[in-house]
Amino acid sequence: MGAIQCYVVRGNGALVADPPDEALRAAISSPTDFVWMDLEAPGETDYARLKHLYGFHELALEDCANPETRTKLESYDGYVFLVCRAINHNPGEEAVDTVPLFSFLGETYLVTLHPDPLRSIAAVGDRLRKNPRLLTEGPDRILHLLIDHLVDYYFPLLDAIDERLDRCEDEVFREVSRQALPLIFRTKREVLALRRSAGPLREILGVLANRGIPHIRPGTQLYFRDVHDHTLRIADNLETYRDMLTSTLEAHLSQVSNRLNEVMKQLTIVATILLPLTFITGLFGMNFEEMPLTRAAGGFWVVAGGMAAVAAALAWYFKRKDWW
Amino acid sequence: MGAIQCYVVRGNGALVADPPDEALRAAISSPTDFVWMDLEAPGETDYARLKHLYGFHELALEDCANPETRTKLESYDGYVFLVCRAINHNPGEEAVDTVPLFSFLGETYLVTLHPDPLRSIAAVGDRLRKNPRLLTEGPDRILHLLIDHLVDYYFPLLDAIDERLDRCEDEVFREVSRQALPLIFRTKREVLALRRSAGPLREILGVLANRGIPHIRPGTQLYFRDVHDHTLRIADNLETYRDMLTSTLEAHLSQVSNRLNEVMKQLTIVATILLPLTFITGLFGMNFEEMPLTRAAGGFWVVAGGMAAVAAALAWYFKRKDWW
Amino acid sequence: MGAIQCYVVRGNGALVADPPDEALRAAISSPTDFVWMDLEAPGETDYARLKHLYGFHELALEDCANPETRTKLESYDGYVFLVCRAINHNPGEEAVDTVPLFSFLGETYLVTLHPDPLRSIAAVGDRLRKNPRLLTEGPDRILHLLIDHLVDYYFPLLDAIDERLDRCEDEVFREVSRQALPLIFRTKREVLALRRSAGPLREILGVLANRGIPHIRPGTQLYFRDVHDHTLRIADNLETYRDMLTSTLEAHLSQVSNRLNEVMKQLTIVATILLPLTFITGLFGMNFEEMPLTRAAGGFWVVAGGMAAVAAALAWYFKRKDWW
Amino acid sequence: MGAIQCYVVRGNGALVADPPDEALRAAISSPTDFVWMDLEAPGETDYARLKHLYGFHELALEDCANPETRTKLESYDGYVFLVCRAINHNPGEEAVDTVPLFSFLGETYLVTLHPDPLRSIAAVGDRLRKNPRLLTEGPDRILHLLIDHLVDYYFPLLDAIDERLDRCEDEVFREVSRQALPLIFRTKREVLALRRSAGPLREILGVLANRGIPHIRPGTQLYFRDVHDHTLRIADNLETYRDMLTSTLEAHLSQVSNRLNEVMKQLTIVATILLPLTFITGLFGMNFEEMPLTRAAGGFWVVAGGMAAVAAALAWYFKRKDWW
Amino acid sequence: MGAIQCYVVRGNGALVADPPDEALRAAISSPTDFVWMDLEAPGETDYARLKHLYGFHELALEDCANPETRTKLESYDGYVFLVCRAINHNPGEEAVDTVPLFSFLGETYLVTLHPDPLRSIAAVGDRLRKNPRLLTEGPDRILHLLIDHLVDYYFPLLDAIDERLDRCEDEVFREVSRQALPLIFRTKREVLALRRSAGPLREILGVLANRGIPHIRPGTQLYFRDVHDHTLRIADNLETYRDMLTSTLEAHLSQVSNRLNEVMKQLTIVATILLPLTFITGLFGMNFEEMPLTRAAGGFWVVAGGMAAVAAALAWYFKRKDWW
Repeated sequence: MGAIQCYVVRGNGALVADPPDEALRAAISSPTDFVWMDLEAPGETDYARLKHLYGFHELALEDCANPETRTKLESYDGYVFLVCRAINHNPGEEAVDTVPLFSFLGETYLVTLHPDPLRSIAAVGDRLRKNPRLLTEGPDRILHLLIDHLVDYYFPLLDAIDERLDRCEDEVFREVSRQALPLIFRTKREVLALRRSAGPLREILGVLANRGIPHIRPGTQLYFRDVHDHTLRIADNLETYRDMLTSTLEAHLSQVSNRLNEVMKQLTIVATILLPLTFITGLFGMNFEEMPLTRAAGGFWVVAGGMAAVAAALAWYFKRKDWW
Repeated sequence: MGAIQCYVVRGNGALVADPPDEALRAAISSPTDFVWMDLEAPGETDYARLKHLYGFHELALEDCANPETRTKLESYDGYVFLVCRAINHNPGEEAVDTVPLFSFLGETYLVTLHPDPLRSIAAVGDRLRKNPRLLTEGPDRILHLLIDHLVDYYFPLLDAIDERLDRCEDEVFREVSRQALPLIFRTKREVLALRRSAGPLREILGVLANRGIPHIRPGTQLYFRDVHDHTLRIADNLETYRDMLTSTLEAHLSQVSNRLNEVMKQLTIVATILLPLTFITGLFGMNFEEMPLTRAAGGFWVVAGGMAAVAAALAWYFKRKDWW
Repeated sequence: MGAIQCYVVRGNGALVADPPDEALRAAISSPTDFVWMDLEAPGETDYARLKHLYGFHELALEDCANPETRTKLESYDGYVFLVCRAINHNPGEEAVDTVPLFSFLGETYLVTLHPDPLRSIAAVGDRLRKNPRLLTEGPDRILHLLIDHLVDYYFPLLDAIDERLDRCEDEVFREVSRQALPLIFRTKREVLALRRSAGPLREILGVLANRGIPHIRPGTQLYFRDVHDHTLRIADNLETYRDMLTSTLEAHLSQVSNRLNEVMKQLTIVATILLPLTFITGLFGMNFEEMPLTRAAGGFWVVAGGMAAVAAALAWYFKRKDWW
Repeated sequence: MGAIQCYVVRGNGALVADPPDEALRAAISSPTDFVWMDLEAPGETDYARLKHLYGFHELALEDCANPETRTKLESYDGYVFLVCRAINHNPGEEAVDTVPLFSFLGETYLVTLHPDPLRSIAAVGDRLRKNPRLLTEGPDRILHLLIDHLVDYYFPLLDAIDERLDRCEDEVFREVSRQALPLIFRTKREVLALRRSAGPLREILGVLANRGIPHIRPGTQLYFRDVHDHTLRIADNLETYRDMLTSTLEAHLSQVSNRLNEVMKQLTIVATILLPLTFITGLFGMNFEEMPLTRAAGGFWVVAGGMAAVAAALAWYFKRKDWW
Repeated sequence: MGAIQCYVVRGNGALVADPPDEALRAAISSPTDFVWMDLEAPGETDYARLKHLYGFHELALEDCANPETRTKLESYDGYVFLVCRAINHNPGEEAVDTVPLFSFLGETYLVTLHPDPLRSIAAVGDRLRKNPRLLTEGPDRILHLLIDHLVDYYFPLLDAIDERLDRCEDEVFREVSRQALPLIFRTKREVLALRRSAGPLREILGVLANRGIPHIRPGTQLYFRDVHDHTLRIADNLETYRDMLTSTLEAHLSQVSNRLNEVMKQLTIVATILLPLTFITGLFGMNFEEMPLTRAAGGFWVVAGGMAAVAAALAWYFKRKDWW
């Protein structure tokens, strides 16, 4: 059985925390009382209790038991069922993970379930305890706050990716680096993973913000328009990051080719200058009885000078061809 | 003639297996009796019998005779005709194959045909024999169970691909490997094949889940929404795999280029250090009568020392350029 | 003037071949007589006659005179005008060519025109002569048979491409082949050409199968659904071929790079082992009066042994680096 | 002030060329008189006159003064304003340029403006002077003729591109060519430029052909369907050219890699055969007092034979590896 | 508190600048008075005043406080809220930055806010002071002028990119250049950034121009159609630039490969000519007692001639293979 937190706020703003089941049932059916019930790591008995109290459909409850459920929005008779995947990123780690938040939104209640502790639940719980009247604006307002928090968690990650992109570019253009490729590759995987989780979120928020969904009051819809806007900015950024990663990879490949060119030129210069000289030494190293210059006084110096001249001519040639 | 299994469940839950044709005909036209008839590897006489019993359109029956028929959903007068391609993957093998399942769904009957034995048919048959009341929920519920099974067979394959992707990346980044390219290539083909069969399945299930289709009860539609969800997750994963395979291939190509760079540097270093030394030996190997140092005591050691100094200078130079 | 074949079938199933113009005009305006008129390589007088008999619009007839007309479907007053491009592939040849089939479908007549002889016309003509009642199902049924044939001609071509793709892959992975690139390139062009002709066909058939078109009876529409299905499979296959050709080209490029790596390694190994040895021989080939070992007994063998040791050490080093 | 040509055709087919303003104003407002007025390189006074005569909106007239205006179709009160960009390609030149044709189409008049002389205006003017009744079919028919001409000017350009594509392929596959890359690149730019001008034209013609536009008679709409068809074929061709250019570029890059492979193999063969031989000559060139073979009779020939054997063995090895 | 400029124009064209709050309130609610209020770098007190005067929604005001808000158009009760991002490019700088312009458009008022000074605000303010009747055409006309200015600021940037693209191409085709890659890369980033800001602008202007938006008079809508046209041309150009940058990058990579080919050929030629010659010198440098030619008169010259012949033959061979 999981950790349960239950808030009931009467029309006059009085907050009752964790009421007994009969009181809860009365509150659920009263049009002036509002309920928010949160279950962390719920178990079988919790699902049975929810089914008993609210009459949730077994398919929705089955989805809640599966931590892999995709972001989605489904209408049932009397409530909507919403699954959002939240970013669960620990500052030190590389991997981006997402955890689900399951919500049932009725006219007077909001039920949230999540297998793992979520910062947004804690934050909104705090805020509600300080100001119970918040819930009298309707449970959809609480849902907005929760999702607003979830979406905000994307931004530090985006900043981290932005910074890493800058580092990628530095690596690519400044130095011969073996780190560039894995870094680009890893960042790309992360952007892909974020896109996979941000995409459905944007679609769902588009529906919440623009289409009339039951149990979401028109006033709250304006607030969701705001969150939708954030998700559009996230999607925009991710798209730009992807484009820039592709460009960076292309630039990297091009730099690798350029460096190969440099290395080859170096080799060609060395070989092209020294092979002729070595050939000349070989020429005068042959064992003929009669050879020109070999017996002449200073013959060695004549030949050495000739070799220096050849080397200088070749060096000048490469210089002119701008290879150096 | 193929293997036929026929279940008739009366409104009171009584199960009649493989009834004679007259009884079957009575059950088909009775609004309180439900029929599920399954034909494995049906032949000409089976098609004639189906046409006679249910009045299926000849075009639909022709599709059933063609094992290449695409996944599709067609409405006829009094029934819908559904073709799903199921994954038929044997654990040991590489190739991904799909086999069709043909279904005719009427108000009180479900007729399924398939050229090959299917695990999902066996599993649902077992379940129905244990609990005949299942069929009284309507034949569309049986259809849902069959398709649910079919879709679930994708997941072990996805896991296998996931694992292989990890291996691809390891191959690419860890070692100079000739296996990387064929492995990436093979996985890509598999992902393409899966996408080709999963794509139409997702579309059909979207229709079954979201649009009102005749003979599918609203309650069952909720269940199809669930299966639709699974197909969306499958499509999501395949898309990500494809993106990651592309990245992996790019990384592979980049690594190949990097290694070429390494090899070339090696060659350049060797050539650049040894060619000057060889030139010097050639210089003192020339047969001039007068040569500097050659007759001096210790001349050899002077020159050898000079060569060692040149080699050291070049090594230091490469070290500084960070080539080593 | 082109070759004309004209079939008139009365309501009682009697077939009249090539009737005189007055009888034809009577049949066209009679609601119980059905007409199929086929013109091969029609000339100016034929167009004038068609205009006179059926009142076709001059724009449609101008299209018929242009062998480049695109696949399209146009509604005119009293008839629809359909252009389909058929595959005209001779088994031995490489090039894929398409020829047009122009059809005018009215309530009681079908007029087909084509600049070149078409196998599908011959086949359907045979079938009609054997069973004249076929035409009493309506001229739209004849149109379906013609198009069904046209679409079926794609499949042998697809099989040929499939086979060639397998050969491409074999070429790419098995051997250093100069044929791979032109083969991939040629296959790609063919797939592009097929896609260009199959795409519009699929769209037109989607319209014929799913939307209500005048002069197409609902019963015939079911048959067109079938042909539409074939075109979807063709489009599917072409898409997959294109993806696989792209992958094959990438694999080819990667293999070319890999081979370059191999060649460079070979060169580097040879140079790296032999250059030091050659340096050593140069060392002892210098003409110093005092040199170590040169006058010692067995000095040669000592040095030769040393060189063998250096070569072995380098070979072992490359072995360990897994370059061999 | 620009060159103005003005045709007024009365209902009885009488042609009045360049009438005075009062007569023109009467013709414009008479429902049985038709007007076509063409202005080449119009100036400020022309715009004022047009505004005065027809009451055109100042925004439309501003567009006419800007030679960069995009292809577009705008409805105003009493007339539609159409901008088409025409190909202005001089046979000898490389660059593809487009010039605008501005048209105002009312119920009884067509006003065309263009900064540069256009062949289509001259051609249609000729035709109208020969057959003035043409204008009594309505000014939309004149507009159709003008646009039909404009669109036809694309085809010689497409043929030129087609031919150049063939040349690109020849360059790529036949020879080591430095022209291939700039040629591909230039052709690609041209295709891009054509696509940019042909795309909006296709869209506009789709609107003219399929949607009901005021002042275009249904009969003329059929004619626009024909021109629309041409633009679809142009777009089709450009798309195919783009695909083929991409393939050609890939093939070019692959050929460049292949040639590098060839060059490297050549180098490796030369180095691998000659370096061992040179090592052997170095071996017997060392100055040891005791050396094997050097004093033996025919020792030289033994060693020379050994070297020939080594060279032959290496050559055979490369032959077997299919490098030659 | 920011810099505020407030213009009130009565129906008779009288301009009142910066009226006191009571007069402003009266003008806002009078249907014949028009108000334009502009706030630069507004602070908290400004937002409170706006809320008090016009009753703007707090969500919209929160957006105004966030300089990162995306381009968007939102309808509220009694006014529309529009966010446009303006180009803020300083001629000398490389980076393209965008700053927001927030506008509230009611029936009789326009309120604009912007964190940074904007040239378009200054320009339109000047124009209004000169001709106060402009405002009596409605506040939507002022909005049009502001956005028209904003959009026009894109064009000098596009021209700059166009020019840089030409330079990129010159760099790529003319010379071995290290600047090409960073230049292409930088230009690509700029095009991406412009596309990101121009895309939403085009969408918003499409809505303003084509759909009926409250508080925008039909006459003004025609003007917005004009601005929409400009944004379409901007988007067109950016798309073409992107395509051309991709082509240029491909051309660059191809040129890099070509140059590597050149370098390798050079090396191969040098090595292939000199290695055989060096081998020959080694041959005659061996210390055999009996060697051919070495004691013959002129033997040296025979061998030297032979070497020259070998070199000439190889040079001729390379010439024929078109390597030089």
